[in-house]
Amino acid sequence: MSAQLQQRLLGELEKLVLIDPHTHINQLDPASHTLADILGYHYYTELAHSAGLPREQIEQPGIDPKEKVSRLVPKLADIENTAQYSWLLEMCRVFFGFEDDRITPANWETLYDNAAKKMVQPDWEEQVLRTSKLERIFLTNNFDEPLTGFDTQRYIPCLRTDDLVFHLTKPETRTRLAKATGIELSGSASLKEAIGKLFEHFVSKNAKACAISLPPDFAPIRIEASAADPILRAVATGKELTADEQRTLSRFVFWTLAEHCADHKLPFDLMIGVNRRVYEAGVYQGQDLFDQRVSLIQYRALFNAFPQVIFPISVLAQISNQELVSYSWIFPNVVTNGHWWYSNIPAYIETDCRARLQAVPRTKQIGYYSDMYKLEFALPKFGMYRRILAKILAEDFVIGRGWAEEHALELGRQNLRGNVETIFGVDGG
Amino acid sequence: MSAQLQQRLLGELEKLVLIDPHTHINQLDPASHTLADILGYHYYTELAHSAGLPREQIEQPGIDPKEKVSRLVPKLADIENTAQYSWLLEMCRVFFGFEDDRITPANWETLYDNAAKKMVQPDWEEQVLRTSKLERIFLTNNFDEPLTGFDTQRYIPCLRTDDLVFHLTKPETRTRLAKATGIELSGSASLKEAIGKLFEHFVSKNAKACAISLPPDFAPIRIEASAADPILRAVATGKELTADEQRTLSRFVFWTLAEHCADHKLPFDLMIGVNRRVYEAGVYQGQDLFDQRVSLIQYRALFNAFPQVIFPISVLAQISNQELVSYSWIFPNVVTNGHWWYSNIPAYIETDCRARLQAVPRTKQIGYYSDMYKLEFALPKFGMYRRILAKILAEDFVIGRGWAEEHALELGRQNLRGNVETIFGVDGG
Amino acid sequence: MSAQLQQRLLGELEKLVLIDPHTHINQLDPASHTLADILGYHYYTELAHSAGLPREQIEQPGIDPKEKVSRLVPKLADIENTAQYSWLLEMCRVFFGFEDDRITPANWETLYDNAAKKMVQPDWEEQVLRTSKLERIFLTNNFDEPLTGFDTQRYIPCLRTDDLVFHLTKPETRTRLAKATGIELSGSASLKEAIGKLFEHFVSKNAKACAISLPPDFAPIRIEASAADPILRAVATGKELTADEQRTLSRFVFWTLAEHCADHKLPFDLMIGVNRRVYEAGVYQGQDLFDQRVSLIQYRALFNAFPQVIFPISVLAQISNQELVSYSWIFPNVVTNGHWWYSNIPAYIETDCRARLQAVPRTKQIGYYSDMYKLEFALPKFGMYRRILAKILAEDFVIGRGWAEEHALELGRQNLRGNVETIFGVDGG
Repeated sequence: MSAQLQQRLLGELEKLVLIDPHTHINQLDPASHTLADILGYHYYTELAHSAGLPREQIEQPGIDPKEKVSRLVPKLADIENTAQYSWLLEMCRVFFGFEDDRITPANWETLYDNAAKKMVQPDWEEQVLRTSKLERIFLTNNFDEPLTGFDTQRYIPCLRTDDLVFHLTKPETRTRLAKATGIELSGSASLKEAIGKLFEHFVSKNAKACAISLPPDFAPIRIEASAADPILRAVATGKELTADEQRTLSRFVFWTLAEHCADHKLPFDLMIGVNRRVYEAGVYQGQDLFDQRVSLIQYRALFNAFPQVIFPISVLAQISNQELVSYSWIFPNVVTNGHWWYSNIPAYIETDCRARLQAVPRTKQIGYYSDMYKLEFALPKFGMYRRILAKILAEDFVIGRGWAEEHALELGRQNLRGNVETIFGVDGG
Repeated sequence: MSAQLQQRLLGELEKLVLIDPHTHINQLDPASHTLADILGYHYYTELAHSAGLPREQIEQPGIDPKEKVSRLVPKLADIENTAQYSWLLEMCRVFFGFEDDRITPANWETLYDNAAKKMVQPDWEEQVLRTSKLERIFLTNNFDEPLTGFDTQRYIPCLRTDDLVFHLTKPETRTRLAKATGIELSGSASLKEAIGKLFEHFVSKNAKACAISLPPDFAPIRIEASAADPILRAVATGKELTADEQRTLSRFVFWTLAEHCADHKLPFDLMIGVNRRVYEAGVYQGQDLFDQRVSLIQYRALFNAFPQVIFPISVLAQISNQELVSYSWIFPNVVTNGHWWYSNIPAYIETDCRARLQAVPRTKQIGYYSDMYKLEFALPKFGMYRRILAKILAEDFVIGRGWAEEHALELGRQNLRGNVETIFGVDGG
Repeated sequence: MSAQLQQRLLGELEKLVLIDPHTHINQLDPASHTLADILGYHYYTELAHSAGLPREQIEQPGIDPKEKVSRLVPKLADIENTAQYSWLLEMCRVFFGFEDDRITPANWETLYDNAAKKMVQPDWEEQVLRTSKLERIFLTNNFDEPLTGFDTQRYIPCLRTDDLVFHLTKPETRTRLAKATGIELSGSASLKEAIGKLFEHFVSKNAKACAISLPPDFAPIRIEASAADPILRAVATGKELTADEQRTLSRFVFWTLAEHCADHKLPFDLMIGVNRRVYEAGVYQGQDLFDQRVSLIQYRALFNAFPQVIFPISVLAQISNQELVSYSWIFPNVVTNGHWWYSNIPAYIETDCRARLQAVPRTKQIGYYSDMYKLEFALPKFGMYRRILAKILAEDFVIGRGWAEEHALELGRQNLRGNVETIFGVDGG
């Protein structure tokens, strides 16, 4: 009975058209052209590499897409147990009519060719969106992107700020900033002005969020302009900063971003807990890991200082979920945001989603985002989430608490879509 | 079959009359007078505030109870997914005959009035206790309470010591201590004597535990009197302490409390891991959070130094549960105690209770306490726990290990009640 | 249906003959002689002690085995809820024909005598192996063991190195090392040479792994010989080391071990996170606990420096499992290894195993090891694991992903046995 109930709820949730509140889609080239675009996703290259495929074979410069796929396919047998592989199968089945149980050296080429034929169709992007029931997609944009040449109602800009906070000492970052804003950094005032220009630009292009990923040891506090000024001047002269100065600078820039989020009424997506380049010999985007010894208490000053800014928060370590639940339960401006990266597998999503639904106001939960680089991934990733959500709604709410099915479905729809609209101010389309 | 088995076990567990080993009941005014006493519980005010209700509306000075409820009710829709809301519904159904699915602006007033009629009955306290199958209730008493004017067999005193350990530098704490004991603090000897007087007073009034909540960074060690003396003298002169001195003082007082627990054979309830006033703009009692980076290794010296003292331990961070299980499995004087605050939701209780039942001697587990401020809350909170316990007994013990149902029920009864009797030395009534 | 499916999968998994990749078996005396050998396992003595049995009664010098069992048996009632007790019952039922529900003061003596009769049979070891479907067993050998007098194909040596890394300052360690290798430590060169001799000896005796357990604060980095030399010279003169020097020395020895693992193509088992002697008044082997504040980021330099060495990793804190999953997902040389000690209970095994199967390449997971001291324990411990594995294969793979049962069973067999063969280079027998 529980299985049938789940199926019924899932069927209803599958009718919902979605907004994806965080992706890495290239708005000018959103869908895949060959299976290599799909298998080139770092989830597959890093797992294949972890299972023994040398990086050099995967990342050989100038490699032909079909050749690349032919090298990855034999390794798929070793990772077919993973959730990531199940996404691959689901994409191949739904989009390319693949019917076998596994992708193997014997059958991949037909699949590759079938996929290529589909992907070359001029309306492939539209087909994917329609099949995936997806109508709006948040982007991750560099601060100096022009944001032109695409429909910003469909592909919604998001100001990504890692470079500003953590790489302002790199000359190319400052050059890009100067070029984007017309302002040369000479101190805190010019930095604030430059960042203000970025916000104005992004907001004028329909940006709905500012976003950043943060290392586990980051702890933002307010820095006086007078403390930032000498550091910014030193940066301008090309002087290398001490670790202390770098931290002060990062905090100053971060706090300035939060101030502009307040001024422009933009939510500030915080993705907390990643250590970059831990495995330096890893494949592209397959080098980052984390240190689970992190706490949201590090963000105490921020949450208190900006009650008017909404902070949708993603945590990398699954053990951080209870803190996220608890901080969202107490702070009006903290909301839960999706299931990020190493926490984005069913075992962790189920545990985390269940706790959120039991303890965080229903209006403050952004159920899921795909984090995808190519459009085809929304389908299996949201599919995975929807199945888990249907299970929890069935077990905990309909059976456990005696809710009517429609009542549970309202909760599910709000979690999957409604809160994306209200929290980011995206209208219902 | 599993569902029917669970139901059968639950039915038996529901027959058990309980002792609640930790509450914040006011022994002179234990039950609610209006629905505002129930909806004023910080779980509802903080969730409503988190969902957007301004603190000023909730905490307006002199606000009429009915007006307060009328302001909270519209926000209930946003928190109806929470476990806390399910407690509210259960109380309203069982105690006040509420029959609707939700409490809404359209139906709350009738509910309010029905509740008020019940609560005004002279035997309301007795009705609640009888309906809740509750016969004894541990209190949380300030160290300077007279503990008179109530039945200490029903409302069992417990010496709460946070003020002594963390706020002894506040003049009012020292004034209260002097008034309660007749002893002015002049050094470590007078402090020990004063604390001894408190213990004598509490024990003479049937106190069965000493208790304290502790921040994540607290790590007790023994402090020599000679190190505490100059600090206590400085405190007496009103001198402000350094952070180091404050820590030394807290450790000295804490250790002194443990010594008196040993002398008076009182268990020392440790509630580990809370950071106070993290969200200072929050509602009353809705400002505290935590830092999950805490370990029971911080209590190593304490557990070794006081083998004769039983430490019933509650942890705030769910991730601390495995350490609690492991330390209870190894240290004879460490026992598991309930599911505290941010860990008190079904998703975490089930995980934590299951691990405890699998790895801690059955004699060393205090299953649950309500932590309630008003008597009506024991019913839904223990109800929630009993359902989870029945599920685990059914799945893990009867089905998983082939235990007879009565065998599993014995384990359940010990967990729910028997261990409260043996660990705190409360006789069976 | 799910229950029948699980049962069917379990039946198949139970046919598999196993290799146990980590035990503390004494190769010269592998099986038990009396029930005291089984009940003397620290899991029972420490739980009985935790439940109130004085250490002195358990560890009385020269105590007769039967007397020892008679003292432990009355305490079993208090720990019958534990997973450990369920292992005991299963051993008694399968090996000794025990048919009661519990071991009690009334029935233990018959059980004891029946067990003794079985254990005295000359082929008892063979009977246990055959009944347990076990054909090869990894040992834990001190670095100075001769490794003679037994079949190294059945009992596979493993070089345990805690003493070298953490106790080289103890004169007896250095004496043992000198005796085993003929080399007196005078500096880094002689240390490297001595360790090389140990590796050569072990490899010549069919050793298939080097292993060590590590405290939570250990963070290996490469130490220059020039930094280690003065410390090793100081050690040779008997000078006491500072904490800094001790840490440098431990790191130097550890790194040297990793270099030799590379040279000899031995996997290096890391068992991460134990604090020794936390409860010093505890029973033998029942004194160790942990601090969950540990991260695999501490091993970043190691994993990067030795891509050619496989590191099968066990973590003591259950919360470390996600890091283990993630590091194994990214680093080709990191593999997951069993469920260690305080994490070795069904509640944690199920959660951890599920996450591993969802996110780590199937080739990189060593499902389980028994950690046993006596052969009889493999049966119930692997039995516990197999039941959990069958449940996950049924729920997540056959039902959840639509895998054929045989497909799921292949995954299960690889997890239980195949990967032990490939990772440690043990041929299939």
